[in-house]
Amino acid sequence: MDSNSIKKLLESVSNKDISVADALNQLKDFEYKELGYAKIDNHRSLRTGYPEVIFCQGKTPEHVAGIFKYMNTHDTNILGTRATKEDYQEVIKDCPEAEYNPLARTITLKKKTEEKTQTHIAIITAGTSDIPVAEEAAITAEIFGNDVQRYYDVGVAGIHRLYDKMSEIKKARVLVVVAGMEGALPSIVGGMVDKPVIAVPTSVGYGAAFNGLAALLGMLTSCASGISVVNIDNGFGAGYLASMINKL
Amino acid sequence: MDSNSIKKLLESVSNKDISVADALNQLKDFEYKELGYAKIDNHRSLRTGYPEVIFCQGKTPEHVAGIFKYMNTHDTNILGTRATKEDYQEVIKDCPEAEYNPLARTITLKKKTEEKTQTHIAIITAGTSDIPVAEEAAITAEIFGNDVQRYYDVGVAGIHRLYDKMSEIKKARVLVVVAGMEGALPSIVGGMVDKPVIAVPTSVGYGAAFNGLAALLGMLTSCASGISVVNIDNGFGAGYLASMINKL
Amino acid sequence: MDSNSIKKLLESVSNKDISVADALNQLKDFEYKELGYAKIDNHRSLRTGYPEVIFCQGKTPEHVAGIFKYMNTHDTNILGTRATKEDYQEVIKDCPEAEYNPLARTITLKKKTEEKTQTHIAIITAGTSDIPVAEEAAITAEIFGNDVQRYYDVGVAGIHRLYDKMSEIKKARVLVVVAGMEGALPSIVGGMVDKPVIAVPTSVGYGAAFNGLAALLGMLTSCASGISVVNIDNGFGAGYLASMINKL
Amino acid sequence: MDSNSIKKLLESVSNKDISVADALNQLKDFEYKELGYAKIDNHRSLRTGYPEVIFCQGKTPEHVAGIFKYMNTHDTNILGTRATKEDYQEVIKDCPEAEYNPLARTITLKKKTEEKTQTHIAIITAGTSDIPVAEEAAITAEIFGNDVQRYYDVGVAGIHRLYDKMSEIKKARVLVVVAGMEGALPSIVGGMVDKPVIAVPTSVGYGAAFNGLAALLGMLTSCASGISVVNIDNGFGAGYLASMINKL
Amino acid sequence: MDSNSIKKLLESVSNKDISVADALNQLKDFEYKELGYAKIDNHRSLRTGYPEVIFCQGKTPEHVAGIFKYMNTHDTNILGTRATKEDYQEVIKDCPEAEYNPLARTITLKKKTEEKTQTHIAIITAGTSDIPVAEEAAITAEIFGNDVQRYYDVGVAGIHRLYDKMSEIKKARVLVVVAGMEGALPSIVGGMVDKPVIAVPTSVGYGAAFNGLAALLGMLTSCASGISVVNIDNGFGAGYLASMINKL
Amino acid sequence: MDSNSIKKLLESVSNKDISVADALNQLKDFEYKELGYAKIDNHRSLRTGYPEVIFCQGKTPEHVAGIFKYMNTHDTNILGTRATKEDYQEVIKDCPEAEYNPLARTITLKKKTEEKTQTHIAIITAGTSDIPVAEEAAITAEIFGNDVQRYYDVGVAGIHRLYDKMSEIKKARVLVVVAGMEGALPSIVGGMVDKPVIAVPTSVGYGAAFNGLAALLGMLTSCASGISVVNIDNGFGAGYLASMINKL
Amino acid sequence: MDSNSIKKLLESVSNKDISVADALNQLKDFEYKELGYAKIDNHRSLRTGYPEVIFCQGKTPEHVAGIFKYMNTHDTNILGTRATKEDYQEVIKDCPEAEYNPLARTITLKKKTEEKTQTHIAIITAGTSDIPVAEEAAITAEIFGNDVQRYYDVGVAGIHRLYDKMSEIKKARVLVVVAGMEGALPSIVGGMVDKPVIAVPTSVGYGAAFNGLAALLGMLTSCASGISVVNIDNGFGAGYLASMINKL
Amino acid sequence: MDSNSIKKLLESVSNKDISVADALNQLKDFEYKELGYAKIDNHRSLRTGYPEVIFCQGKTPEHVAGIFKYMNTHDTNILGTRATKEDYQEVIKDCPEAEYNPLARTITLKKKTEEKTQTHIAIITAGTSDIPVAEEAAITAEIFGNDVQRYYDVGVAGIHRLYDKMSEIKKARVLVVVAGMEGALPSIVGGMVDKPVIAVPTSVGYGAAFNGLAALLGMLTSCASGISVVNIDNGFGAGYLASMINKL
Repeated sequence: MDSNSIKKLLESVSNKDISVADALNQLKDFEYKELGYAKIDNHRSLRTGYPEVIFCQGKTPEHVAGIFKYMNTHDTNILGTRATKEDYQEVIKDCPEAEYNPLARTITLKKKTEEKTQTHIAIITAGTSDIPVAEEAAITAEIFGNDVQRYYDVGVAGIHRLYDKMSEIKKARVLVVVAGMEGALPSIVGGMVDKPVIAVPTSVGYGAAFNGLAALLGMLTSCASGISVVNIDNGFGAGYLASMINKL
Repeated sequence: MDSNSIKKLLESVSNKDISVADALNQLKDFEYKELGYAKIDNHRSLRTGYPEVIFCQGKTPEHVAGIFKYMNTHDTNILGTRATKEDYQEVIKDCPEAEYNPLARTITLKKKTEEKTQTHIAIITAGTSDIPVAEEAAITAEIFGNDVQRYYDVGVAGIHRLYDKMSEIKKARVLVVVAGMEGALPSIVGGMVDKPVIAVPTSVGYGAAFNGLAALLGMLTSCASGISVVNIDNGFGAGYLASMINKL
Repeated sequence: MDSNSIKKLLESVSNKDISVADALNQLKDFEYKELGYAKIDNHRSLRTGYPEVIFCQGKTPEHVAGIFKYMNTHDTNILGTRATKEDYQEVIKDCPEAEYNPLARTITLKKKTEEKTQTHIAIITAGTSDIPVAEEAAITAEIFGNDVQRYYDVGVAGIHRLYDKMSEIKKARVLVVVAGMEGALPSIVGGMVDKPVIAVPTSVGYGAAFNGLAALLGMLTSCASGISVVNIDNGFGAGYLASMINKL
Repeated sequence: MDSNSIKKLLESVSNKDISVADALNQLKDFEYKELGYAKIDNHRSLRTGYPEVIFCQGKTPEHVAGIFKYMNTHDTNILGTRATKEDYQEVIKDCPEAEYNPLARTITLKKKTEEKTQTHIAIITAGTSDIPVAEEAAITAEIFGNDVQRYYDVGVAGIHRLYDKMSEIKKARVLVVVAGMEGALPSIVGGMVDKPVIAVPTSVGYGAAFNGLAALLGMLTSCASGISVVNIDNGFGAGYLASMINKL
Repeated sequence: MDSNSIKKLLESVSNKDISVADALNQLKDFEYKELGYAKIDNHRSLRTGYPEVIFCQGKTPEHVAGIFKYMNTHDTNILGTRATKEDYQEVIKDCPEAEYNPLARTITLKKKTEEKTQTHIAIITAGTSDIPVAEEAAITAEIFGNDVQRYYDVGVAGIHRLYDKMSEIKKARVLVVVAGMEGALPSIVGGMVDKPVIAVPTSVGYGAAFNGLAALLGMLTSCASGISVVNIDNGFGAGYLASMINKL
Repeated sequence: MDSNSIKKLLESVSNKDISVADALNQLKDFEYKELGYAKIDNHRSLRTGYPEVIFCQGKTPEHVAGIFKYMNTHDTNILGTRATKEDYQEVIKDCPEAEYNPLARTITLKKKTEEKTQTHIAIITAGTSDIPVAEEAAITAEIFGNDVQRYYDVGVAGIHRLYDKMSEIKKARVLVVVAGMEGALPSIVGGMVDKPVIAVPTSVGYGAAFNGLAALLGMLTSCASGISVVNIDNGFGAGYLASMINKL
Repeated sequence: MDSNSIKKLLESVSNKDISVADALNQLKDFEYKELGYAKIDNHRSLRTGYPEVIFCQGKTPEHVAGIFKYMNTHDTNILGTRATKEDYQEVIKDCPEAEYNPLARTITLKKKTEEKTQTHIAIITAGTSDIPVAEEAAITAEIFGNDVQRYYDVGVAGIHRLYDKMSEIKKARVLVVVAGMEGALPSIVGGMVDKPVIAVPTSVGYGAAFNGLAALLGMLTSCASGISVVNIDNGFGAGYLASMINKL
Repeated sequence: MDSNSIKKLLESVSNKDISVADALNQLKDFEYKELGYAKIDNHRSLRTGYPEVIFCQGKTPEHVAGIFKYMNTHDTNILGTRATKEDYQEVIKDCPEAEYNPLARTITLKKKTEEKTQTHIAIITAGTSDIPVAEEAAITAEIFGNDVQRYYDVGVAGIHRLYDKMSEIKKARVLVVVAGMEGALPSIVGGMVDKPVIAVPTSVGYGAAFNGLAALLGMLTSCASGISVVNIDNGFGAGYLASMINKL
């Protein structure tokens, strides 16, 4: 239940459009909905401004579908991340309008069209292999109503590709920079813009990349300022935070 | 040289208040000033909106003092981080008005009073031992003109101390949460606010804390959303980024 | 052979109900039973109060089944952990009454119903994905005769779900807290109860979670007191220790 | 304020022995005392049954002394851990009756003699070099009123020294086993007793001991059951938990 | 070519039983045989007293078979380690008398029966899951003509199983102790015998066992003397070294 | 576009053989070609003397094929590394003359025969299992027109195999030394030659080899001089750098 | 008490040269001597053939001196390792004939001259900086009566220095090879001899040597056979084991 | 003895200018000079073209001075790296003309002026704190007769400082790029030049820089080609290798 729904409910009670008993009933899962295997955090939207997002990894397809089904009874967009095709096939049994993006591994169910933000988020990748993580970030930001601009494959091995886009990139209100291997791109970008940079290390690379550790350490120790870091491959976290900053 | 100074210079040229030759001379270090051991990035302020900050660690006191002396010829506040008492004693030979904060290990030289921001930054620590890092963040944010509110020693072992301050904390536009040991505080805070949380792991703790590694990994893998992380003990980076977001 | 069986045997000898030779024969595997590929620790029950538990991982299904078959000749409940479906299919050839729990990956064979304990153990998880490890702990505690209460999916991202259950949770004599990712839940719980907390890190998470390392380090460096830690994903160890403490 | 003090206060109010205003005044720091650099968790004793313990490391001697001074206004024993001689010298200015144990690095201030427990805690070390950590555990357990038995230097290189003491050791209600290097002692002890074993890895050793990592990993992966682990060198945590279990 | 073969060849030349040209031809691969993808070290037997052993992992079945085929032209026993069933099926095309041990993952081809040593090697495992590594050690030692005694599943969780065998074990000239998890067994054994102990960590275990790292570090930092360590799961290396010591 | 092509184009413009408009058109992708999922760095050849190489890992077969197709419109040899059979099957749909090397995992498309270098590169492996990485290096060096000599399976366990080839090896202008396990070979070679040695650690080995980490650390800390290191298994990087040095 | 002393005592009892009561008294510390801070393992010599050795690190000088004083009442040579000058100065108060070797950091007290072994141990170092560890090994082996030959600074950067000594080195019965940095020397030596090689990694080196980790991993993954490894800088352990093998 | 000296000696023998006995005497230390604590590799110059360099760290000042004294009897320049002031004070007792560079921590003794190379080496640092490592590289390259150009403090946080120097930098024959923190500079430089780049990670930075690990991993996983890496802080190794390549 988000802030608006509660306000409406309270007004209805005040106007006697609804009895106290009925209002109480509507509020019975106000804090969270107990599903046995999960407790859906209904209060979250009111508290943080964002509905709960479903992290599908480690859950059975049945659990994922059960949570989608329950959340579908509310009036907010639904996002599942790290979803498999199996999760999706289970979800659409009850929510046939849900959509699957195999690249970003997301299941989305748009219940209402949020008004686009005036300012936008730039999402930038170093290479082609970083695109799935970037897309997870983009889809997350978009489902929360943000305008997103994508700049892919502009890594430091051919840095002129970045410069070519730089004047455009500088117009964003917040930047998400996604890179694997040595993860140097956020340092370069961070040294040239006056906006917050959210750095996302990816597990792209091999050997001493150690599944994203090299990029992670590189981004944490960046000599440029205005940069912060999220977990390896955590496109969702970056998109969520970017949305939060973009909407300030 | 920041945006304002350049504008003024160009107007003076346009008005013939200053000759082209003199203007050129003033612009000769426009991009950077070569000091031999360092190249001061004068262009930075124009590019990122912030003047260069002096990372004193690894530099000799003479180099630190030399950079302060040069930057003192400009009209911006100066900040040196990770400064020792030796650095400071060298700096005040030429810049007697510089101030040293031994807790935060900063040298500051205020050349002009920036107007305070309307919104503020909340800086929160888990324990008393995390205060030096928090102060580095606070001083950084303050020298860039931000209003800062401090909430110290509200860690999860006695979480009611945090709750007691929560309604105040929620009023901040951006939060810096500083914690060592298991670094759990950003997760708790992040789950209760609708603002960006900048998490700063500290090297407080022993044994399996591994000099901040436990806190760092904990913050990176936080189950709460809207959190990003800077380097271990990097109070400066957090304060800088918080300022950037607060001023958006 | 547990303490009771030996006492009965000695009384029988004393009463001449059984010859010394026959008693000797019954005691021939008193210390351990040699199976060639394994030496079953029969003495264990007498020494530690608990029969040997079968760690199935790394053993062939034939070996697992052979050990079950031998232990089935005694009068104690049997527990196999980290068991595969293949292990189970081999076991039921000789022990058709054995049961398999695919979530907890346990094979259990109840030979007698132990009286339930008066006090109980609370088993708590941060998320839905931590449930398999929690169930291994629960089944272990239950087969040793403990009353177990489950509180699942009450992690710190929506901490009010925990508070909602807190007064119930406080009634337990000992708590098992299971969490992956940053593993912050034991710190929160530990700060609010006056009972021992056994923390179980899980390998849930990705990237900097490093297969449970982040949660493990976090729990070891917890700022709360009264917490100790078992191996990553070691539900069995937590359930066993909880049983030991609950029965003190 | 512990449970007893509050009860008395409420009775006084009920009996009109004290005015509501005065009672309120006495309760004004009921939740925590704000010292500026620290928030003393007064509520903790009521919540967890144990008063707050002062972790001195990372605090200035002045802060340590300030906290001691404040806590000295209450009627509970006070314990400071990881204290330096400098901390102590500052503390005794206001609390001259405080005592320092240089081996265990503790400052203790006994305000009342707690009745000794009927059951006892066994504290065991593998070597002579592990004694400081063991003493921190022992002093912690003793200040909370536990009877402690010490068994030092009985490590696995000469395991008969342990066996010689085994019948005594088995009488304890809970065991703390402290070991560095390969940390094998808890596995041996755990395989022979039917009581909970709290394993404490120490940073004793060199090279591949990696400051206690070898012992920590060894204890976490112990093949014996009934063992849990606290942080490297965390004698306090082990003593605290042992006290909690011993008093169940 | 071993020492004996060369001696015979030189005697034949000396006795004119063979022409210099023919002798030369026999010696043309004296140093090594070039196979293109491998250079078989024929000189090794003369230099180190042992023929080359084939490490099959990372080689194609065709390469493994090619090396077996070539070595089969000599008069020494042949050993392939870390061999798959596929390797074996390729090898027997040309060497039908070769044998495969799926537990130890070895292919052996016995060309002559070496006289058994008078003294023997004891091979000891902590658990049942360590047996494959122990068997690799045993088969290696046996093919080089050593008498081997096996003591399996005598780990520290039920240490009386070890003591039961101790008087036998003490008769060995050198001991190989194989253990996973915390790897404590070599410390126990090493503290009770006056013979060299070769410790073999195995990758048995999960979580903080980190694929054998816990056992490896534990064995390296053992408080007992007379112990040395080989690589994780390196049964071959232990068997080889044990043979070398046994034959001194 | 390489240096030659641009020169020709400019001469054509100068000679009026081509209109300015047409020249412009030919130059429109001068900096890079936008493919949506990738930006092909056409400028690279001019800048670094080498055309872009396709790192296939992490790209879909369709993307790999799309890049090959585009690059096939230019007049340079094309190299794809870390390519799967699936990549290749997609590539040959449009570029049927492309060749696949399953050992080196490369796809090559030779558009012109570069003149062989006068000097040559020596590529040396410690073992047979290191050959795939060595072949990646060799194919990379060869497609850029270098003469390559291979010396395989000459590792330190039978160091006479290396010495046998040493006088030949010394004739190379630059050496690539490929080794897994302890990675000692570059130290030996580096101590005997007066030419640069490029060391390539491989992930060959098990246990404490930690997927190439042991070899990597060994090579970085080599006591011999004149050695530098590339990433684990990075045959391409070694071949590329060797080519660069060989052509100086 | 070693085997001989006990035999003599029993003969005296048998011959009535000594009363049972007196014999009992002599045997009262037979198993171990309780010093409060230490339990001296008197039984060790009988069990393992070697008297207890004092690991001084982590003990106070007073404790070290106390143990020396007690052991001086027996008739065996005494060895203290990792001893500081402070330890020594305390020891000589009661044991003035003790000797200190500052390079090897050993305190030795020779009570009897053991007959030299017929065969000898070769101790080899890669560099000059490895000598302290090698000397700890040499002194340990010598105090147990072994003949030791030293070959220092023969590392792989100038491998001909090793070859020059090789025919001598091959005469040893067992070899100790000490090396830091990449630790390649044991692989080279192991490939050329037919005797056991005990490899000792040292913490010599910097950067990626990670305090001996590079050398440790390199030695564990050596491609040569007949090698085993002791802890980083563990000269004592190597000397002890070499003695054990040399005396077989 | 370098190639020239030997040639002269042989000519003298051939011309009978010197007796065979005298020549032999001059050659007696031809392979190496035994100093007891060190074996100076005289043969090295002939073999690798470079005289031995003295790694002072871990050697006593007396040993360092002894090696300088001996090498001073030859006619080559002498270089000691990682030297302390104490080393230097001992060295100048016998070699008063030796010079100490406290920044680079080198002792140099120039015996002859090598002709400068025609081509030059560019040495580039990211920051001011990286200069000591860069100077070690520069002094090494210079003592071997190379022309060196320095470009300091041009890191990626203000990348225009690099671009300003780029056309100059491109003229070098080989580049040494020195950087700490995230170590991104070699990737940027490597993407813009057609010459070999030797990357040197430094231990500059804190927290997640892990003493140079972040920079090391970043450089190893660089997405740019033509880059290889030496050990953390290994200025000497980079300067040596750069010299080798520059002189090809």
